[in-house]
Amino acid sequence: MNKREIDILDVKSDVIADNDREAGKVRKYMREKKVFLVNLMASPGAGKTTTLVRTINALKDKYRIGVMEADVDSDVDAATVQAAGAKVIQLHTGGSCHMDANMTFRGIEQLGMEDIDVLFLENIGNLVCPAEFDVGAAKRVAILSVPEGDDKPLKYPLMFQVCDLLMIGKIDVKPVFNFDEEACRKYVRELNPTMPVIPVSAKTGEGFDAWIDWLTKEIEAFRAAEV
Amino acid sequence: MNKREIDILDVKSDVIADNDREAGKVRKYMREKKVFLVNLMASPGAGKTTTLVRTINALKDKYRIGVMEADVDSDVDAATVQAAGAKVIQLHTGGSCHMDANMTFRGIEQLGMEDIDVLFLENIGNLVCPAEFDVGAAKRVAILSVPEGDDKPLKYPLMFQVCDLLMIGKIDVKPVFNFDEEACRKYVRELNPTMPVIPVSAKTGEGFDAWIDWLTKEIEAFRAAEV
Repeated sequence: MNKREIDILDVKSDVIADNDREAGKVRKYMREKKVFLVNLMASPGAGKTTTLVRTINALKDKYRIGVMEADVDSDVDAATVQAAGAKVIQLHTGGSCHMDANMTFRGIEQLGMEDIDVLFLENIGNLVCPAEFDVGAAKRVAILSVPEGDDKPLKYPLMFQVCDLLMIGKIDVKPVFNFDEEACRKYVRELNPTMPVIPVSAKTGEGFDAWIDWLTKEIEAFRAAEV
Repeated sequence: MNKREIDILDVKSDVIADNDREAGKVRKYMREKKVFLVNLMASPGAGKTTTLVRTINALKDKYRIGVMEADVDSDVDAATVQAAGAKVIQLHTGGSCHMDANMTFRGIEQLGMEDIDVLFLENIGNLVCPAEFDVGAAKRVAILSVPEGDDKPLKYPLMFQVCDLLMIGKIDVKPVFNFDEEACRKYVRELNPTMPVIPVSAKTGEGFDAWIDWLTKEIEAFRAAEV
């Protein structure tokens, strides 16, 4: 029994090493095309799509926006995001619980980068595996929503370590839940001391000025950088 | 690139076939020991632990309860569940986003089944991979919580296909969220026409009579069956 387990672990480290190489290629390609790629990650139902729609509305007069909607199955979000004014492709992972760099590259090729400045990947709803798979994004952003509880950084630490920004989502329902924002921020700080943490509500718009401000600065820095 | 993908898929089907064999062994072992094993699955923060605590309190005068708390990391839930009166073991999956049958069997051996009638496995918070891995439980139970949204059965169909009962959790906050219970039930029925769906609140206790009633009947049927 132990032997089989060790075999599985070896396969996994090979997969991750291969993925890291592919992620490097994606990053180089996106740099050449001057497209800023954001890998957006969160639990199922944390509000990724609603957050994206509001973000697209805030950015679309300034940048041409693309979205890759990753799902195990279904395409319920793609139409919503398209209606907001983004160029959209639906990616089905065929049962896989995360996007890897190779799947991401195939989505990028299929969508075409000619008329896109900023590309969002809405990853599979999952706090575990997407954190392990670098897809070659310029920035990784996570949403932890208030109903999930303030202790999630303790339980799924890698996600909070690898991200560049954390939104605390559905902040408008904080009064209804027993969510200790200070405790949550403390757990996050221990894992990732310098990461900005922005409470937002995609419903009311609270916190979006700070999120859009951070994002615009990062996009501009990316676009200004030498190839 | 395609070749590598096919390789990964092959590895995965081997893993699932091996797992199904191991799950058969777990099921046979638990039948011999007369311990009723429940595999409890849900997204991060859907309320698995709070639901377990209330369930333990409802059952503990009648049955001796065991709990296996599976986590990628941390042991924040184990103490809570132990305080409720269950015999508890904390399992760390070492980065894996689901429990498999072999990990489950090792937990069962370590915990010891001599003084347990009903054993709960609190699986990793994830709607994708835990659905693929049969751990050898007598029954699989899922919680979908109201803040996650009514469309989750469309996006993570396998979880709703493989389960024997679904709780719609955090039903007390339904007035705060745009959750269409009828639509949710319809999506679930299309995937799993006969599965009972019980709205519950682990906070207020709403719906727990129906859940405990179903669970007790299943436990009694299991205990009454011939080995």
